[in-house]
Amino acid sequence: MVTSMLSAQIRTETLLSPDGNMKMTFSLSEDGTPNYSLSYSDREVIQPSCLGYTLRGDASPKDPMTYMRVSYDTVDMGSGFAFVEAVKSEFDETWEPVWGEESHIRNHYNELAVTLAKKDFKGKAGKDVQMVLRFRLYDDGLGFRYEFPTQDNLKYFIVMDELTQFRMAGDHTAWWIAGDYDTQEYNYAQTRLSQIRETLPKMIFNNASQHVVGPTAVQTSLQMKTDDGLYVNIHEAALVDYPTMTLILNEEDLSFKADLTPDATGYRGRLCAPCTSPWRTVMVVDDARKVLASRLILNLNEPCALEDVSWIRPVKFMGVWWEMITGLRSWAHGSRLGHGANTENVKKYIDFAAEHGFDALLVEGWNEGWRDWFGNQKDEVFDFVTPFPDFDLPGLNEYAHSKGIKLMMHHETSSSVVNYERCLDDAFAMMKKYGYDAVKTGYVGDIIPYGEYHYGQFMINHYNRVLKKAAEYKIMVNGHEAVRPTGICRTYPNLVGNESAMGMEFRGRVLPHHVTVLPFTRLQGGPMDFTPGIFEMDMSKINPNSKQQIHSTLCKQLALYVTQASPIQMAGDIPENYLKHMDAFQFIKDVALDWEKSVYLAAEPGDYIITARKAKGADEWFVGGVTDENTREMTVDFSFLEPGRKYVAKIYTDAKDADGVNNTIDTGSEACVKYEIKEMKVTSKTKLKVRMAPSGGFAISIK
Amino acid sequence: MVTSMLSAQIRTETLLSPDGNMKMTFSLSEDGTPNYSLSYSDREVIQPSCLGYTLRGDASPKDPMTYMRVSYDTVDMGSGFAFVEAVKSEFDETWEPVWGEESHIRNHYNELAVTLAKKDFKGKAGKDVQMVLRFRLYDDGLGFRYEFPTQDNLKYFIVMDELTQFRMAGDHTAWWIAGDYDTQEYNYAQTRLSQIRETLPKMIFNNASQHVVGPTAVQTSLQMKTDDGLYVNIHEAALVDYPTMTLILNEEDLSFKADLTPDATGYRGRLCAPCTSPWRTVMVVDDARKVLASRLILNLNEPCALEDVSWIRPVKFMGVWWEMITGLRSWAHGSRLGHGANTENVKKYIDFAAEHGFDALLVEGWNEGWRDWFGNQKDEVFDFVTPFPDFDLPGLNEYAHSKGIKLMMHHETSSSVVNYERCLDDAFAMMKKYGYDAVKTGYVGDIIPYGEYHYGQFMINHYNRVLKKAAEYKIMVNGHEAVRPTGICRTYPNLVGNESAMGMEFRGRVLPHHVTVLPFTRLQGGPMDFTPGIFEMDMSKINPNSKQQIHSTLCKQLALYVTQASPIQMAGDIPENYLKHMDAFQFIKDVALDWEKSVYLAAEPGDYIITARKAKGADEWFVGGVTDENTREMTVDFSFLEPGRKYVAKIYTDAKDADGVNNTIDTGSEACVKYEIKEMKVTSKTKLKVRMAPSGGFAISIK
Repeated sequence: MVTSMLSAQIRTETLLSPDGNMKMTFSLSEDGTPNYSLSYSDREVIQPSCLGYTLRGDASPKDPMTYMRVSYDTVDMGSGFAFVEAVKSEFDETWEPVWGEESHIRNHYNELAVTLAKKDFKGKAGKDVQMVLRFRLYDDGLGFRYEFPTQDNLKYFIVMDELTQFRMAGDHTAWWIAGDYDTQEYNYAQTRLSQIRETLPKMIFNNASQHVVGPTAVQTSLQMKTDDGLYVNIHEAALVDYPTMTLILNEEDLSFKADLTPDATGYRGRLCAPCTSPWRTVMVVDDARKVLASRLILNLNEPCALEDVSWIRPVKFMGVWWEMITGLRSWAHGSRLGHGANTENVKKYIDFAAEHGFDALLVEGWNEGWRDWFGNQKDEVFDFVTPFPDFDLPGLNEYAHSKGIKLMMHHETSSSVVNYERCLDDAFAMMKKYGYDAVKTGYVGDIIPYGEYHYGQFMINHYNRVLKKAAEYKIMVNGHEAVRPTGICRTYPNLVGNESAMGMEFRGRVLPHHVTVLPFTRLQGGPMDFTPGIFEMDMSKINPNSKQQIHSTLCKQLALYVTQASPIQMAGDIPENYLKHMDAFQFIKDVALDWEKSVYLAAEPGDYIITARKAKGADEWFVGGVTDENTREMTVDFSFLEPGRKYVAKIYTDAKDADGVNNTIDTGSEACVKYEIKEMKVTSKTKLKVRMAPSGGFAISIK
Repeated sequence: MVTSMLSAQIRTETLLSPDGNMKMTFSLSEDGTPNYSLSYSDREVIQPSCLGYTLRGDASPKDPMTYMRVSYDTVDMGSGFAFVEAVKSEFDETWEPVWGEESHIRNHYNELAVTLAKKDFKGKAGKDVQMVLRFRLYDDGLGFRYEFPTQDNLKYFIVMDELTQFRMAGDHTAWWIAGDYDTQEYNYAQTRLSQIRETLPKMIFNNASQHVVGPTAVQTSLQMKTDDGLYVNIHEAALVDYPTMTLILNEEDLSFKADLTPDATGYRGRLCAPCTSPWRTVMVVDDARKVLASRLILNLNEPCALEDVSWIRPVKFMGVWWEMITGLRSWAHGSRLGHGANTENVKKYIDFAAEHGFDALLVEGWNEGWRDWFGNQKDEVFDFVTPFPDFDLPGLNEYAHSKGIKLMMHHETSSSVVNYERCLDDAFAMMKKYGYDAVKTGYVGDIIPYGEYHYGQFMINHYNRVLKKAAEYKIMVNGHEAVRPTGICRTYPNLVGNESAMGMEFRGRVLPHHVTVLPFTRLQGGPMDFTPGIFEMDMSKINPNSKQQIHSTLCKQLALYVTQASPIQMAGDIPENYLKHMDAFQFIKDVALDWEKSVYLAAEPGDYIITARKAKGADEWFVGGVTDENTREMTVDFSFLEPGRKYVAKIYTDAKDADGVNNTIDTGSEACVKYEIKEMKVTSKTKLKVRMAPSGGFAISIK
């Protein structure tokens, strides 16, 4: 243990979780440095770690009449504090999300709020500046945040650095993606903490916009496992009006330090009291399944801010999309490849989607701008209201509505956010006029305003601004390339989807273990529009010029609809590929989108996940299982079913000779689409052995 | 002469002005470096000076499907050129501005367009990139610009540096303000070029937003005078989709180099071919009055882009404004000073303005946001539609309209441009709903997007975007803290006013010679909302806490309505101060705003200006004269009048003991408001001796 950094503690406060298993200790050292530590069953999880900030203030406004610049002094808000008070409380409620993995969520924690005062705040000698540290300790983890109350001596201020540390107690195994201010679309590495530096360069590949933070920087949610079997997960909750946190590892003491995404001028945040930071979270559980069952992130968000949520609905959709992703056709009208979103083609999709009971059809490339949009940092690209000449916007909406489905709007912003914000009202008004109720947004490329990053405070405010504005128009949002979610969907449940990680569009680049990690990390903050359901793994079958080969069995694709819960789920492939496997397609048609409860049957990050979920408002269960590159034989225990009742289960499993890994172009792609479907009767006493092929999986529907 | 920089010229093209007096020489040296020089009656004015760019390209877009970043290489576009062709032409037209200093403007020039090709453009070996240098030579000056035509090998590109040089032929006397990316509100210095460096620090004072460019950087329009009596003026015209140019002096060869305002990432511009730079202009005349008479800047702008201009009208206005500027009352409701824009107070102004024949009343501080707006880089400050509770927006507009005047809207953006752009449509729609037809915009403080400057390309596009949007709503724009004008008002004549220089709001800081320089510099690009007409020079009479004392006589204030032509003119003072001098106020009531012709009777930058103007559509003349800190006795020659006719002139002159300079708080302010008014008959043969007091002036109305 490094003791040199810790002075004698002059004030200590402890907080226990409701079950008494976890203990958080807050201390203020002799020199006024605040720190905290965390233990689980007397096992040290977070060693004493720094709290605080380097700020620039006092930024309290000058008289406007003087027309003078405010001068900012740097202020150390990481030491020199005096203790003011500590207040403890308990909270226990159960709330009902609009949609989600379960219909009722318990929010039960003990709270400690420590008020500190900085004696020597520059420029205001003799007057204190107060900061509150609020800790909430749950049975499955800790959340804490900084609060700056309304006060005379601090109003506007700049965050130069957030000092928050997470000093880990050992060289844990971690599942991580590289820290980047502009993209989250990387594969996960599984290494010891001490191996991050040597591994990180191998995990980087070229992206449309990227800014790698540093040689030991990783993103949250960061899943770790200790050698004695604890699962530790660091993330943040309720990211509002604040930059996104990256974690930078100091290998000397195995501590992570918060790194806030800078703005174009290098500042890490611009705040105005009263205000708070997001919650910094440390989940600690002794079973990987409990990570998946944790609602820590959602619980630390504010309750629903929308009065009327009746218009928010789960959506199962198809898209005029995969044929562009695979390079068969183009988003752009006039392209030599041909334009995907032409009226005739869209009608075919509408027919197919309607026939098979889908709710909506996404159409990308419907609007002017696609000829010349990418990579040029062009301000005015799209206007979001002008269709290409071959896309009959009113007619196609009418046609879709006549068949009982809606079109899903697509707003690729080309990351020209200034332009999107100018156009937003007109764009949403047009959507409402023609009957769209959901939009997929996109932020491909470097951000305009120039110099801003995808995860800086300006963009965080933008994403939330779009959510609020969309709610005014009763529009659901599915944000792509937006920031990784932090549970905001509790407050704005019209945020029905996010990409914010590598999805199926990356095709052959997606490593087999990817989907065994996502529910531990990316999905902790909210659902993902992963776009599963790819039935043809050999891209050359769609586009002869593509050599891409997806490393997954067909059954694994089915399982994802269950293992990765989301109120919106896409069937990503083209109709022609579903027509070849209509028996397997039945699972996608059947699977529910919103859940009464979820049971995590088996899980280990990077290895496998088996999840069972009961549909909300229906007497149906669905089970999904996925594995990494290794074949596995596992037993599904049906004890989640109501005892004494008999159910019929339809089971979709990898065939014996199925293989999701060894299916390169050379070896042929047939192995990955070999599957078996059988029906059997099951009860709560059934135990079923299931074999998953390499990068395989299985799916079960139970009625 | 520095010859080392010039290689042997391999290609030379010359261009003469229509009168043959001026000669421009273009040369391409052996190493392919383009340069130009300029002479006036065989006197060298611009010695051979560099042309060109450092760019980053090729930025031609990649296939969007690859989702790959565009990689930019630095390209030297300042040498290595080959000559392609030179095309000469002549142009002569007379056009009619919607408003201005004269009703007809002749646009007469000879043109040379030189096409160059860069052989070794990186990344596209063997393929040329073309650039056109277009020169227009007038009898009173040169304009030239860069053009990038549509071509396969250059589309999107980044300007790293513009290499344009202006090598002066001597150590001229110059009237300049310090180069700054964020403010133009400085006093003018009068020094030799070689004295800029030593003088510049003394000319800087604290401003709400400022970024001084460098120790020898000055702004355009830069007025110079050679020792042999030539007046040389460097500026730019038609600043569209391009950053503003500052001039940086190299004292070694007395050359200025273009310095483009960078964006938040340090880039100097982001262009997309086909595109052009603004015109770089060098005016050369042998009489100071010809500078004032020149229409070079307007002529180099595009013709009017608006089909219907019937709604654009000159506006004489008062404002609920000076009482806030002087600190008597506040913009903010709830201020301890009291809120200026309260319904009762506004009605008083409406009554007064209507009674005295004004067209409009500006009301500042009418809307929510003023309590907490300045200096905090706050994104969402104003919404531009929510009045303070004590401002009856519909009622006051009705009341004003019933009295035959309009209210002028005020949009202080607090430089949160992202926010203003979000709100613009709603704000303009509300204006139209209640009958506003003009808006004063304001950009006080540092720009949001963070890191952008007031004069960078993003902001130039913003100002022009606001103009176009306003035109859609038939709204006139009076932009404050916006970029110095470059003749854009020819193309968008709804740009009826700009501040863009130090105006009367600076009160005691405005040096006596300021208004004898502005028409040579700032006003070359368009009119200024200088807000003259201050009758009470002792600010403590309005606000006992203010020690500010304006250094001007009352008659000088009257003269400004003529010497500084503008289609919008404010009577800046409060009604109470006009009531004390109703006889002098009569001139402000009488003076015209739009002119059939203008005659510049006497002028010397920094010393004095006497201008006579004939009202458009009326048989009335107005004459104004201003002097610097020196008293002057000058003769007004009325030969501009129609011969043989008799007129009645009303003459407002400084009293014998008037003094606009020696009127500090201590010495009393009475000396500056001493004036005499007399009427006399005049003809075209009249010659009238007029004495101007220190910082004094005179005004004459003639019917």
